[in-house]
Amino acid sequence: MRSPKRPEARSAPAGAASQTIYGLHAVRVMLERHPQRVRTVRLAEGRHDPRVRAVEELAHRHGISVQRIDPQDLRQLLGDVAHQGVAAEVTALPPWDEDQLLAALSGATAPILLALDGVQDPHNLGACLRSADACGALAVIVPRDRAAQLNATVRKVAVGAAETTPVVAVTNLVRTLKLLKEAGLWVVGADADADREASQVDLKGGVVLTLGAEGAGLRQLTRQNCDFMVRLPQLGAVESLNVSVAAGMLLYEAVRQRGGA
Amino acid sequence: MRSPKRPEARSAPAGAASQTIYGLHAVRVMLERHPQRVRTVRLAEGRHDPRVRAVEELAHRHGISVQRIDPQDLRQLLGDVAHQGVAAEVTALPPWDEDQLLAALSGATAPILLALDGVQDPHNLGACLRSADACGALAVIVPRDRAAQLNATVRKVAVGAAETTPVVAVTNLVRTLKLLKEAGLWVVGADADADREASQVDLKGGVVLTLGAEGAGLRQLTRQNCDFMVRLPQLGAVESLNVSVAAGMLLYEAVRQRGGA
Repeated sequence: MRSPKRPEARSAPAGAASQTIYGLHAVRVMLERHPQRVRTVRLAEGRHDPRVRAVEELAHRHGISVQRIDPQDLRQLLGDVAHQGVAAEVTALPPWDEDQLLAALSGATAPILLALDGVQDPHNLGACLRSADACGALAVIVPRDRAAQLNATVRKVAVGAAETTPVVAVTNLVRTLKLLKEAGLWVVGADADADREASQVDLKGGVVLTLGAEGAGLRQLTRQNCDFMVRLPQLGAVESLNVSVAAGMLLYEAVRQRGGA
Repeated sequence: MRSPKRPEARSAPAGAASQTIYGLHAVRVMLERHPQRVRTVRLAEGRHDPRVRAVEELAHRHGISVQRIDPQDLRQLLGDVAHQGVAAEVTALPPWDEDQLLAALSGATAPILLALDGVQDPHNLGACLRSADACGALAVIVPRDRAAQLNATVRKVAVGAAETTPVVAVTNLVRTLKLLKEAGLWVVGADADADREASQVDLKGGVVLTLGAEGAGLRQLTRQNCDFMVRLPQLGAVESLNVSVAAGMLLYEAVRQRGGA
């Protein structure tokens, strides 16, 4: 088994793909957690408030170049987004393989993982990554076949979350779930017909929150490998929740049980 | 004040716009709750399992015509969706006005309302409608100006929820929130910097869950009219949750506090 435990371990080779992230919070967090992956920080000319200055000082402390650029150019670079006058070029976080996931687990306490069983829409994967990031999930697991993979659309929808929350592409999801169970995690599947609600199951330990594709739900074999099945609200006329909303609710419930945000 | 309390009260005028809904659950719920709005039920030829037969019987009981059609034609009509061999033409639910909302409230116990303060993306409004439906919300309130309105894109993204959960278009959101407070509801705003988590505030009574646009958040005047501000998980690198995911989490929390799905 290979040893990299964190994205940094394989980061910043010359020529590795670069991604642009933006927003005060996103750039500050990247400078704090993964400074070696930050190539350049760009700040809008004229922005000198304390939060922007804090980002600037953090970059200087790590020897990272800071460019002051025209706000118009920043807008041209990023489009019409809430960039707050702050952007950064970072080494893109490549997908992890199963070994990297297992290595990362060894250093994690009660990790939350999100597993998506056959989600094909890249917008849904991007939205799930964004929610996984917000809820402190360690990684998002997707099968390598017949499922959305980490691509430019996913990264864009994830608005930076794809650079901090890794996507783990696995050959056989059921096999991976078994390995995760052996590693001490509970595999929790979402299903509209489950007997128990998400809040009735203990999600405070290490958990793999597992959701199926919209319409189809979890595949039979995936379902059989879940330790618990839980249901989410389904009081209305529509058959199922959007998978990224369902993932958000389940992640929320896990965070709530752990004492919150 | 006008008197219609339920969508039916203004339903089914000849020539009113029609919408197609699909899926066993969605069509059955519409037949159960709003039979007078169902114009035609379409069932795939060859589908005679008990759940499809139950839909057929329900339609017959209400004197609604049932057509058996070629599964290929159903697919052509609906596109590549999980229709389960069942579709229906229904009278479209038009947007409500404030008077209709207030009238509906008078018959509701501890209603959940969702208010979106300046959400401009129709996909987000559609996704919020779908979650509101799943969590049993009475309606979704949007300002008439500078915000996404109920249109074809919204209806499509909501996959049928727009035909059961009304969108209330209001001229002045703050004024509406004040009226709702007078009607006994608590106005709860979502904000990343709030002192309290959503789970620390009692959401079991009538509540208006209020969310702002992504990036901008709630407008100052909206914020001032909230009884409570609550925060949602924000443990990651990304500045904010997608607004439809944030709405889903807050709706989930309200349902959880009420004893669940």
